[in-house]
Amino acid sequence: MTATSRVLLAICLGLSGLAQARAQTPATPIAGVDAGLIEDIVVGSRILADFGVLDGFGHVSARHPTNPNHFLMSRSLAPALVTADDIMEFDLDGNAIDARGRQLFLERFIHGEIYKARPDVKAIVHNHSPALIPFSVSAVPLRPVSHTAGFIEDRVPVFDIRTSAGMTDMLVSNADRARSLATVLGTRAAVLMRGHGVTVVGSTIPIAVGRSIYLERNATLQTQAIALGGDITYLDPAEARQIVAGGENGGYLRAWELWKLKAMAPTK
Amino acid sequence: MTATSRVLLAICLGLSGLAQARAQTPATPIAGVDAGLIEDIVVGSRILADFGVLDGFGHVSARHPTNPNHFLMSRSLAPALVTADDIMEFDLDGNAIDARGRQLFLERFIHGEIYKARPDVKAIVHNHSPALIPFSVSAVPLRPVSHTAGFIEDRVPVFDIRTSAGMTDMLVSNADRARSLATVLGTRAAVLMRGHGVTVVGSTIPIAVGRSIYLERNATLQTQAIALGGDITYLDPAEARQIVAGGENGGYLRAWELWKLKAMAPTK
Amino acid sequence: MTATSRVLLAICLGLSGLAQARAQTPATPIAGVDAGLIEDIVVGSRILADFGVLDGFGHVSARHPTNPNHFLMSRSLAPALVTADDIMEFDLDGNAIDARGRQLFLERFIHGEIYKARPDVKAIVHNHSPALIPFSVSAVPLRPVSHTAGFIEDRVPVFDIRTSAGMTDMLVSNADRARSLATVLGTRAAVLMRGHGVTVVGSTIPIAVGRSIYLERNATLQTQAIALGGDITYLDPAEARQIVAGGENGGYLRAWELWKLKAMAPTK
Amino acid sequence: MTATSRVLLAICLGLSGLAQARAQTPATPIAGVDAGLIEDIVVGSRILADFGVLDGFGHVSARHPTNPNHFLMSRSLAPALVTADDIMEFDLDGNAIDARGRQLFLERFIHGEIYKARPDVKAIVHNHSPALIPFSVSAVPLRPVSHTAGFIEDRVPVFDIRTSAGMTDMLVSNADRARSLATVLGTRAAVLMRGHGVTVVGSTIPIAVGRSIYLERNATLQTQAIALGGDITYLDPAEARQIVAGGENGGYLRAWELWKLKAMAPTK
Repeated sequence: MTATSRVLLAICLGLSGLAQARAQTPATPIAGVDAGLIEDIVVGSRILADFGVLDGFGHVSARHPTNPNHFLMSRSLAPALVTADDIMEFDLDGNAIDARGRQLFLERFIHGEIYKARPDVKAIVHNHSPALIPFSVSAVPLRPVSHTAGFIEDRVPVFDIRTSAGMTDMLVSNADRARSLATVLGTRAAVLMRGHGVTVVGSTIPIAVGRSIYLERNATLQTQAIALGGDITYLDPAEARQIVAGGENGGYLRAWELWKLKAMAPTK
Repeated sequence: MTATSRVLLAICLGLSGLAQARAQTPATPIAGVDAGLIEDIVVGSRILADFGVLDGFGHVSARHPTNPNHFLMSRSLAPALVTADDIMEFDLDGNAIDARGRQLFLERFIHGEIYKARPDVKAIVHNHSPALIPFSVSAVPLRPVSHTAGFIEDRVPVFDIRTSAGMTDMLVSNADRARSLATVLGTRAAVLMRGHGVTVVGSTIPIAVGRSIYLERNATLQTQAIALGGDITYLDPAEARQIVAGGENGGYLRAWELWKLKAMAPTK
Repeated sequence: MTATSRVLLAICLGLSGLAQARAQTPATPIAGVDAGLIEDIVVGSRILADFGVLDGFGHVSARHPTNPNHFLMSRSLAPALVTADDIMEFDLDGNAIDARGRQLFLERFIHGEIYKARPDVKAIVHNHSPALIPFSVSAVPLRPVSHTAGFIEDRVPVFDIRTSAGMTDMLVSNADRARSLATVLGTRAAVLMRGHGVTVVGSTIPIAVGRSIYLERNATLQTQAIALGGDITYLDPAEARQIVAGGENGGYLRAWELWKLKAMAPTK
Repeated sequence: MTATSRVLLAICLGLSGLAQARAQTPATPIAGVDAGLIEDIVVGSRILADFGVLDGFGHVSARHPTNPNHFLMSRSLAPALVTADDIMEFDLDGNAIDARGRQLFLERFIHGEIYKARPDVKAIVHNHSPALIPFSVSAVPLRPVSHTAGFIEDRVPVFDIRTSAGMTDMLVSNADRARSLATVLGTRAAVLMRGHGVTVVGSTIPIAVGRSIYLERNATLQTQAIALGGDITYLDPAEARQIVAGGENGGYLRAWELWKLKAMAPTK
């Protein structure tokens, strides 16, 4: 290798520096979990970072496919930097199966308690999506204005941590708080957390990720519709039900391919 | 080829990965259609994706230049990924002429029924443009505030699918719904779809695409003007008519060249 | 040159394709004008495109440095694509000195008439800056909320083309319309154009460009301040005067270097 | 080096041109200061530029780690362009220890007077963060809506330069003005400056930088919550205190690593 080649190589490597830093390293296999599901957690994290739905905080999880009492989630790390090797296995009380000294997300209890309460849920996103937070502190409920957010049904409920836990640092950092959150979520697709963010669930990772994106979008649309000052026609609950029954945005599969391509592009 | 060259090549290819994935492949010719029109559909799709007017959903079509009872549109695919080879031919009832097993857009009927009703229309865009949706659910009409949106005339009508079809999943996925939409469109340039998006027409692809961009922009401007709280001076219908008569934004040709250059750049 | 090198070169050229398309070609010298002034027109156009202040439309001009009855402006072209070779010389009636068949901006009269009326003005920007247009159609005046927009003084006047010219296509495409605009501008730094945009003047190109950027920014800030609903403290005219007298944002020179570096970066 | 290599090198260098221009040059050591602290000032400046919290104006400083009566700050330069070699040492009256003819920020007195008044403060950011300025001119106070902005406590005070200094050019360009600002800041984390911007303090650079980012974000969230029109539940001061006591966003360290990676990427 010549000196010139080395210079060129260094420059080009420099250009793709961020991409390199984020490239996937071979993951330690987790028993009973195929690489595709792990990859979906990674891709979902990066898609949401790419959309600004996740910033330095927040997390994506999936229920373990063969052991429904376990779930999979990254070690504590900014979502944009998650790789397959960062994904860990937890029981539903939030205990790491094989911690190896890695730092854990403080709010992993959100995931465990919802997986306990909702057998239908296979994937969960917790995020601080910017257009949603105003609805978490406002007396005005988040309601569906766009057919892409039919999964909202009539409105998104709000969990106020003060109600059950009094004055706190507002983090859902233990099982009690997480159980209260799961109760407010009930059978719905999402629950706002007052002054904090949102937790979104789905039967697949693309659905939980896609709902996170379209919740954020619906919040922006509703905010703008309110600003216009006229009466607003929200989706009828009957329309919302038909949308979900009809496969809701095609399971987000067409959009997922586009989002993945953008979020995983080497220049990202 | 040396090892060093291979490394360099791999890196540079990586850098242009997304671009490669989106590069045009040689298209199967469609009888009577020249490559320029096909390319305009591709370029128009990517321009609108680049502006955020199209996201994972939405579509651009053109009437067949020699067979006015046919039209051209992509197979079901995120608009940012459309290439010349994805463009298919349809009759005005939405039947694919040569499907070869490809998946079709559910809402292709929008295009067919409007081409039936409006012989002057040669290009159609259906999108979920974010600033427009609030006007589709609000009692406040979308009106022209900027001279670049003179084609709005006095206001954009709103199609509410409930009026003709009752409670649905809100998709214009059959000919009946599409005929109702075409009726509300009437002789205008665009029609809002309640809680869904907009359909925009033109006599060329650059005009339908340019109108889509300036409709979105006008919606943003009007929303902000309303937020200021003072009386608003909208374009006079006489001004709007002169703007359209005068060739409306120069047929968007100067802007089109810029938009195309940006949307088709290899680093996109 | 080896095949491998050719492949690498092609890829890398591809990566910088848009930059190449926009690179400066050697300019035909214009008598009495040094290359630095021409470059400032090019750089100013691209900075404003980079900020979204200019889109496919709008233009930047400079008074001829040795012949004050002439001015310099691009041929009709999207500002992001302007190169030194596109800069032409005009007299103050908008006649091109050496047209060579090039297409001219329809609204070049704006520049000529203002240079006639305002001997202190050496540079002019006409743009469709998005946050400004709402103020051009609203009864609420644009006023200075930020010290970086002290040049606004008490408010920006609004030119309504209807007042002098009646129902038109809203373009300032002749000398009569432009003279009316110059009258409303008076001795100020900027004039809004109802439903259209703004024209901004300065004693240097960085000042006219910098004012265009900070006008847009001030409009956004004022819109948000109004949305808060409380009383607003605008700059006092005495503060505004001291800001302008003190050299107004340091003549924008520190910011100009940053803006230029970003706008002219090869990956742009 | 072959001609081909030279061409390739030139192209690749061109591609990383902006990055090169911004790359760190070896810094002249400042006695008693290790390179990590200098790097944090550089990285903090670029992170804030990357977020749009700093534009062409504003600055980041750190108290001298071994001489508490001195502080470290860049020469007058756009924050996005700051390198280690631009960092200078000042006494708390704003005198440069080793000026070597470099141009100084006019508002360096802000830093000196706050370091005098607040022994707990080790890092300061002064910026013109766009979502904050509306609160600086509005009767509506900036209050915490998100748990990530608990450091606001009940509200951010506003410094109006008119109160102590009368009609000025609004710059805090001498010690008297800066002392008045420090008085309004009191024991808090931030102080708004009417029609100008904000000054933010912290016990580390990541804290002062992170607070600058989350103040901007909280301002956006509060503006949108107000726009919804319903009653708003702000953080309770007891919640805010627990958040700060609990280490406030983990000292911003997880986010800092992500922000740094993005802001220092060679393609930036």
